[in-house]
Amino acid sequence: MVLAKVVGTVVSTHKEQSLDGAKFLLLQQVDLEGKNSGGFIVAVDAVDAGVGEYVLYATGSSARQTKRTDKKPCDTVVMAIVDQWEVRGTTKYNKNEQT
Amino acid sequence: MVLAKVVGTVVSTHKEQSLDGAKFLLLQQVDLEGKNSGGFIVAVDAVDAGVGEYVLYATGSSARQTKRTDKKPCDTVVMAIVDQWEVRGTTKYNKNEQT
Amino acid sequence: MVLAKVVGTVVSTHKEQSLDGAKFLLLQQVDLEGKNSGGFIVAVDAVDAGVGEYVLYATGSSARQTKRTDKKPCDTVVMAIVDQWEVRGTTKYNKNEQT
Amino acid sequence: MVLAKVVGTVVSTHKEQSLDGAKFLLLQQVDLEGKNSGGFIVAVDAVDAGVGEYVLYATGSSARQTKRTDKKPCDTVVMAIVDQWEVRGTTKYNKNEQT
Amino acid sequence: MVLAKVVGTVVSTHKEQSLDGAKFLLLQQVDLEGKNSGGFIVAVDAVDAGVGEYVLYATGSSARQTKRTDKKPCDTVVMAIVDQWEVRGTTKYNKNEQT
Repeated sequence: MVLAKVVGTVVSTHKEQSLDGAKFLLLQQVDLEGKNSGGFIVAVDAVDAGVGEYVLYATGSSARQTKRTDKKPCDTVVMAIVDQWEVRGTTKYNKNEQT
Repeated sequence: MVLAKVVGTVVSTHKEQSLDGAKFLLLQQVDLEGKNSGGFIVAVDAVDAGVGEYVLYATGSSARQTKRTDKKPCDTVVMAIVDQWEVRGTTKYNKNEQT
Repeated sequence: MVLAKVVGTVVSTHKEQSLDGAKFLLLQQVDLEGKNSGGFIVAVDAVDAGVGEYVLYATGSSARQTKRTDKKPCDTVVMAIVDQWEVRGTTKYNKNEQT
Repeated sequence: MVLAKVVGTVVSTHKEQSLDGAKFLLLQQVDLEGKNSGGFIVAVDAVDAGVGEYVLYATGSSARQTKRTDKKPCDTVVMAIVDQWEVRGTTKYNKNEQT
Repeated sequence: MVLAKVVGTVVSTHKEQSLDGAKFLLLQQVDLEGKNSGGFIVAVDAVDAGVGEYVLYATGSSARQTKRTDKKPCDTVVMAIVDQWEVRGTTKYNKNEQT
């Protein structure tokens, strides 16, 4: 999985029918400090994530292993909202300590 | 999924038989401003997209989860035509406002 | 799928048994002008492509969706020989106009 | 598979339900000398690996071929803890010789 | 598939149980001249390849399509030992002509 931040949304009216109701999120990949690391990707939201939240996304066939993406032409899914991460014992991000 | 712009087409007469009738589109990957970001890829069209339109494409086994690509040797599919996207509350592209 | 040019072949006597009879092609990835863009890959040939031809290849599980690659440890297949491609209305390559 | 070092953990309370109980590890990719080579990824732990250990991770659908990840939206799994590796007859790392 | 050279081995005692008995090889990717091109990867050996040999490896779900890797958390497999390759009619490598 990849650590990313939700930065926006994509709207599509005309799409493969099985995707009706899917919500597309724009995600920016981040480094271990939570800073934008350059790449971005579009994912289907499986967990009601919002703009500004840190999330994990999964790709490939694993992106179809959620209730909202099963059997759909979706190769990227947000499957977790991140509360906290730490590197070598140091907390790099804690959702509850954000101001 | 990846945000891209349809820039052309590829024609192939001699191909795996299951692909008869498939339409191959040339897609250029774009950045969050909609500008060409360097890479391109060839996709099967599942949604009747046209040259000049912004689209989303899916890859891998997920590219076979459309009616037109099921069980075919296709690893990239255009599964949505993009109407609009926004980043941190700012609309970066709106199809209806293009001139 | 990726646009590439067949530039050579690979011979392997000792391989997973299910691959007996498979023909391995060396492919060089090309840009939209048909020029070598740096990368290369080895693919199983599903369409009797020859050295010098432009082709499309598919990767991942989609590379097993041809008669010749079904259930085999093959992650890249040439599934189409390219006749022509065009970008924004301009023909970049036409097989019949080559000399 | 990719050689990596466990450097941290990620905590997520709100995630796809099938992932309840999954432990997310932060992995840094390493070179043949065991040094950080730049990239990092988040994986589900299938083998009780700890921070500081060298591991192998597998991606894609293969990341779901463990008891802990079967049918889950997980595209990266730690499936082995590394004891030793050698390159051209030279031992580059041996877990028992670390101090 | 990717052309690579076997340069070493990785030993893991503690791993997902289904991988018991699997032999992990360290592979270095090579260019069309057979020279190290920078990247390396760890693969399960399906064909009894040895250090110093040129091989092909397959990735993703295709890496599970061998007798030794079926249903295992393995995303990279050595499925062929290379005897020879040629580029535009020139033999770049022939195993029998090595000294």
